[in-house]
Amino acid sequence: MPVTSPGLLTDRYELTMLTAFVRDGSVGHPAVFETFARRLPEGRRYGVVAGLGRLAPMLADFRFDTAEVDWLRAQEVVDDATAAWLRDFRFTGDVDAYPEGDLYFPGSPVLTVRGTLGECVMLETLVLSVLNHDSAVASAAARMVLAAGDRPLVEMGSRRTHEEAAVAAARAAHVAGFASTSNLAAGRRHGVPTVGTAAHAFTLAHPSEAEAFASQVAVQGKDTTLLVDTYDVEQGIRTAVEVAGPGLGAVRIDSGDLADTAAAARALLDELGAHDTRIVATSDLDEYVITALADAPIDGYGVGTRVVTGSGHPTASMVYKLVAVGFEPDGPLHPVAKKSHDKISVGGGKTAWRTHDAAGRVTREWYRVDGVAEAGATRVQVPVVRGGRLVHDPSLAEVRAHCASALATLPEAARSVSAGRPYLTATLEGETDG
Amino acid sequence: MPVTSPGLLTDRYELTMLTAFVRDGSVGHPAVFETFARRLPEGRRYGVVAGLGRLAPMLADFRFDTAEVDWLRAQEVVDDATAAWLRDFRFTGDVDAYPEGDLYFPGSPVLTVRGTLGECVMLETLVLSVLNHDSAVASAAARMVLAAGDRPLVEMGSRRTHEEAAVAAARAAHVAGFASTSNLAAGRRHGVPTVGTAAHAFTLAHPSEAEAFASQVAVQGKDTTLLVDTYDVEQGIRTAVEVAGPGLGAVRIDSGDLADTAAAARALLDELGAHDTRIVATSDLDEYVITALADAPIDGYGVGTRVVTGSGHPTASMVYKLVAVGFEPDGPLHPVAKKSHDKISVGGGKTAWRTHDAAGRVTREWYRVDGVAEAGATRVQVPVVRGGRLVHDPSLAEVRAHCASALATLPEAARSVSAGRPYLTATLEGETDG
Repeated sequence: MPVTSPGLLTDRYELTMLTAFVRDGSVGHPAVFETFARRLPEGRRYGVVAGLGRLAPMLADFRFDTAEVDWLRAQEVVDDATAAWLRDFRFTGDVDAYPEGDLYFPGSPVLTVRGTLGECVMLETLVLSVLNHDSAVASAAARMVLAAGDRPLVEMGSRRTHEEAAVAAARAAHVAGFASTSNLAAGRRHGVPTVGTAAHAFTLAHPSEAEAFASQVAVQGKDTTLLVDTYDVEQGIRTAVEVAGPGLGAVRIDSGDLADTAAAARALLDELGAHDTRIVATSDLDEYVITALADAPIDGYGVGTRVVTGSGHPTASMVYKLVAVGFEPDGPLHPVAKKSHDKISVGGGKTAWRTHDAAGRVTREWYRVDGVAEAGATRVQVPVVRGGRLVHDPSLAEVRAHCASALATLPEAARSVSAGRPYLTATLEGETDG
Repeated sequence: MPVTSPGLLTDRYELTMLTAFVRDGSVGHPAVFETFARRLPEGRRYGVVAGLGRLAPMLADFRFDTAEVDWLRAQEVVDDATAAWLRDFRFTGDVDAYPEGDLYFPGSPVLTVRGTLGECVMLETLVLSVLNHDSAVASAAARMVLAAGDRPLVEMGSRRTHEEAAVAAARAAHVAGFASTSNLAAGRRHGVPTVGTAAHAFTLAHPSEAEAFASQVAVQGKDTTLLVDTYDVEQGIRTAVEVAGPGLGAVRIDSGDLADTAAAARALLDELGAHDTRIVATSDLDEYVITALADAPIDGYGVGTRVVTGSGHPTASMVYKLVAVGFEPDGPLHPVAKKSHDKISVGGGKTAWRTHDAAGRVTREWYRVDGVAEAGATRVQVPVVRGGRLVHDPSLAEVRAHCASALATLPEAARSVSAGRPYLTATLEGETDG
């Protein structure tokens, strides 16, 4: 199993730049870096920020152990002076961010890091890896949650993504409103509720479907979910109700035309007296299929591939850019911005604000580089790290509740799965020196 | 940082099934599970298997520590008898697999696990997470490698994927032929060569581009790569050559129309006498853009998002299925297969074979369930684990060489980036009891 301090989950150029900063004397100059997305994935109307609860502790703990520094020196990634600097290093700066589970739009300054040039430059890859992955999953998951309405969703895509990404994906989907996950490490590490009953292999491993169901019911009780499509769905349902009785918890369907199969299953279950037995569907679902199944008699969904891979958009395309820098220690900050014609950004550390209408719908998001508060507006960012210490550590339940309340600020049109332009774009207001 | 034994990187239903197997007495029955993909991603003509070098040691080490078993028991995932079984558990079975870096096609039995029902059923999620992720990256990377021809590729997508997936992606891309990676952990953990110079932030952090370039050259020497598009590419190149001299190693272009910009950059470098200064391009590349840039004067590519996200196909869609089982300890194996009409599979543990033409091109791939060798055919699988012990542990360089030789067995049409049907489909021949 990987046991790596966050320091090496980093691109080499960050340490190459650090070496130059140590050599040319600018390593201790003040700097502000900002994370934002220039655009949302094609057709998406909003994004959901996720990963802060995983990232913030890693930023506070960001350091290099002796063996890692020795390896960096041996590989000539850093020189002796920089190796010495790394041995003593710990992050002492400040981080402000959009709370996890909040919405973001093109231009939203979702995370701002203030510190020395040396300490800020090293965080780029880790910040982006965590936020881009987790936000991609949460953004897709939120669309599925809104499409599913009152029907609960189970995240079950671990097998379709990297084994550690699977744990983070389960957490991000739960933040966005999924009820539970199949992933045990997500349960142990993050407290996400876990569920699971049986695979087709379980039925195949017994001489008959009836023996498999009997074995499962003996262990899990009749409230379990029986997978009824290993051989034939109709016969599977009859056998399931024979074995468990009409008090059977649920049947799971994992193949075929889900609308037709669910309708036939509901009719058969009712005919067999199993009126309270739920129907769970789990085959290649995403927000579009879930929307199309709204009228089918389905009581819950299991979603795999499409949620852990961001439903076609596996990364959130956020970037981490230097927006202000001082050219001497404790010197004044100067806003800076790249001028490449297709990648323009706005200089200066930003504060973000939103206004809402009387019904609580968000109507506008903008940012300022002068830090001045706006009357009648809500500030989006919260302090996360101060002087290298974590000062924001909400529970997963609090994060999940925040996401639900943030999604509730979207108007109905933006909540649908239909493709469209971003509902909002965060824009600059009152630009002055940051 | 996550420190989890492989055991919990697992779906809950595996342990739920295990509990039932312990309870109903079948936990020690012999079983064969197989991993295969029913199809390739749309338009893909071949796949590249990757991840075995990460997976095999995890299978051999697969176990649960005391605290994990206690947690599983407290969560009522397992009962007391199963908790006791887990405390003593280690994998004692056999694994055969396609060598890492080899090709695979629809139906290819890429990994076969033989052991007891209990030990085999628990491996599903871990096997699939590793192989699906790493194979998705390697399959996309191979297409980029073939498109790039002699021009070297750098993997630099860490920021666009989960922080641990980034390390695995760097390794998988290197297996498929990428020369190097930006990811330091991939260098330390897997020995992938790492590279990196500077970001736009480095230029912005200095009062002028010339001062930034001078600082970088002072540390890295004139053979470094200078990023010339922070403000204006033409001025950036002039400044780069002024600072480093005509012996400058390379310039990097990360924005704009790459073909036009590279042509202008080449002309300007030649005019400035920097005939040997290379041009590296790094903006939103994939196999299609690389193919389109074949005539541009570009000497190397850096690929980020598209390689780590599988170029539109972030997972390989492999499944792990029970194909044979005994209904008593040491009893005979019976082939089994799911009969759902859209997810049919073939029962029995398989051996896979290929034939090649006189030019060394692969012409056919098929499998048998009787294990009989075929005259004139090459067996694809190799023994990986025997009695729970790792018996196959090639170096990363050997794996990379194997991938290059496997890709060389594809005919020209299958090597192009054009969409098409799978070049081959592995099919059953001589079906008998496995």
